[in-house]
Amino acid sequence: MIVPVVLSGGSGTRLWPLSRRLRPKQLAPLVGERTMLQATVDRTDGLAGSDPIVVANVDHAPAIRRQLSGDPTLVLEPVGRNTAPAAAIAALAARRGGDDPVLVVLPADHVIPDLAAFRAAVDTAVGLAREGSLVTFGVVPTRPETGYGYIEQGEAVDGGGNRVARFVEKPDEATAARYVDAGTYLWNSGMFVFLASVYLEELERHRPEMAAAARAVYGASGWEGSTLTLDGSLAECPADSIDYAVMEHTDRAVVVPLDAGWNDVGAWPALWDLAEHDAGGNVLIGDVVAEGVADSYVRSGGGRLVAVVGLADVIVVDTPDAVLVCHRDAAQDVKAVVERLEAEGRPEVEDDTSAADA
Amino acid sequence: MIVPVVLSGGSGTRLWPLSRRLRPKQLAPLVGERTMLQATVDRTDGLAGSDPIVVANVDHAPAIRRQLSGDPTLVLEPVGRNTAPAAAIAALAARRGGDDPVLVVLPADHVIPDLAAFRAAVDTAVGLAREGSLVTFGVVPTRPETGYGYIEQGEAVDGGGNRVARFVEKPDEATAARYVDAGTYLWNSGMFVFLASVYLEELERHRPEMAAAARAVYGASGWEGSTLTLDGSLAECPADSIDYAVMEHTDRAVVVPLDAGWNDVGAWPALWDLAEHDAGGNVLIGDVVAEGVADSYVRSGGGRLVAVVGLADVIVVDTPDAVLVCHRDAAQDVKAVVERLEAEGRPEVEDDTSAADA
Repeated sequence: MIVPVVLSGGSGTRLWPLSRRLRPKQLAPLVGERTMLQATVDRTDGLAGSDPIVVANVDHAPAIRRQLSGDPTLVLEPVGRNTAPAAAIAALAARRGGDDPVLVVLPADHVIPDLAAFRAAVDTAVGLAREGSLVTFGVVPTRPETGYGYIEQGEAVDGGGNRVARFVEKPDEATAARYVDAGTYLWNSGMFVFLASVYLEELERHRPEMAAAARAVYGASGWEGSTLTLDGSLAECPADSIDYAVMEHTDRAVVVPLDAGWNDVGAWPALWDLAEHDAGGNVLIGDVVAEGVADSYVRSGGGRLVAVVGLADVIVVDTPDAVLVCHRDAAQDVKAVVERLEAEGRPEVEDDTSAADA
Repeated sequence: MIVPVVLSGGSGTRLWPLSRRLRPKQLAPLVGERTMLQATVDRTDGLAGSDPIVVANVDHAPAIRRQLSGDPTLVLEPVGRNTAPAAAIAALAARRGGDDPVLVVLPADHVIPDLAAFRAAVDTAVGLAREGSLVTFGVVPTRPETGYGYIEQGEAVDGGGNRVARFVEKPDEATAARYVDAGTYLWNSGMFVFLASVYLEELERHRPEMAAAARAVYGASGWEGSTLTLDGSLAECPADSIDYAVMEHTDRAVVVPLDAGWNDVGAWPALWDLAEHDAGGNVLIGDVVAEGVADSYVRSGGGRLVAVVGLADVIVVDTPDAVLVCHRDAAQDVKAVVERLEAEGRPEVEDDTSAADA
């Protein structure tokens, strides 16, 4: 039995103003017509034979229910404690009927265009997980990216994949280039496949206090149909990622390469990368007029005409209550703007404040 | 007696989306809280001892009536025929009580920050006009601008000013630089002072068919209180500017220099020039957040937050139904965008289409 676990925890401030605290990027139709959450669940269709478990902030529950069909299990967090506790509680939820399914843990905010390649990698990973491995997907790098951690592949294992030789933090540019040239390094994707029992065992071994806290939260929380609303004591659970808490310590870590156009949509330039460009290198979405514009991403979403004239490498994102105009190279600084707006108590950080879009 | 004649004929497509066909730039509060039309009339306060005559498109009459206090005379055109016929009909209207006032003819879309200098120049011009001269103001150039025509000053005349040696068309850059260095050339401002009778005489002399047509239109048009709605036959009147029709031909042309910060607000960079800049060289108007932005003009006017990140030399103008994002050096191309939108029949060219701002 395979159960997809979709982690919908991110807030995606770098994709403001489309992404808001109450409507984060994974709940918005950023690429195509489906939201990234929907696309993530779609990606597991038929694979699982089971509805997914979705772990999300309790504030997002109404939007998630609207977006998903079938009968997904919702694990609702009053507060985020990073992915390791979320996966532990999802594992406990997956085991409540007595089964020990293979969990396919997928962040809700990744884009993976090549479905066949993804499915093949998952098949390999599921086979390895059934033998007791904790599998992480390593994305075959296409550039010396300094924004990701890398995984060095060790010896090959039976059934596909390689032992994890080591995890390395985000490198500087020269190191990243070396990693890409070496051919033995993969990007750390944050996607995992393991038996629920194996993950819980390894968490118990390497982070017993976190495992105990997760179990206590799970015990104190109440099911209502297929929704588990987590107890407030989650706030006291240590917060950490699956990588830091388990993968970097366990001797059962295996990495399976993934070459499927993976993109974690970290900031606006990723949306430009993912879309088809016109002859001028532009991505123009909605009611947009461009004159003398090159290599730009312009998105009209506020019911307004957006006219761009004589610019290159810009990002323009129009929403009903806020407009962002940004150089593509400065897209990481959108986070700083959002933090400033947060500090000022601006409502535009929380949600779209326009009545028209309510 | 002095009567200000305010010509409110321009459509200002280069200042879209703030300027619309039905609400052109002179009717919008672009600089400060008063509209340029209001500021133009304010500029004549006390000078005249008479309410102004405003010549405008009939579609703009409601907005003009809302904006002006007192009892201005409105001359409403069904169609624009450039400034020479407009000034002729204004002269006929000014003479209808039997007076022969000095007309101070001012386009409604100019900004003149130094009121004292303007008043002094007008005083000089009025004195010369009373002696029978047709006076044009020549703006003391501050840069080798290629977007204006120039006036070469001839011999000095009693009472101030100089004979017009010649009018020259918009020069190339080298010629413009030569003009500025010479010190005897002034920018052709399109502002005039003359007796109503003298202008009509000279128009009769140099463009008799235009003078006759203007008289016929005036005779066929009906007064309603202080409003003269011009007859449709205006469409058959030849169209030309005061410069081309009269000033370049008459031997009574005198130029009075004006050094008062004059700006004809031809395109968005002029608004950047006119405003006070912050330490980063930015002009930020309304609800704007800027991060890493330099030498830019950002205007939020659509009730929305405008965030600009990592850009220099950009113009961002937000209105309820349209947003413009433009490089400062490409601001002249806004006209091309508006022409394209016009060809597509887009309503955003006509007026603000948002209900919120109706």
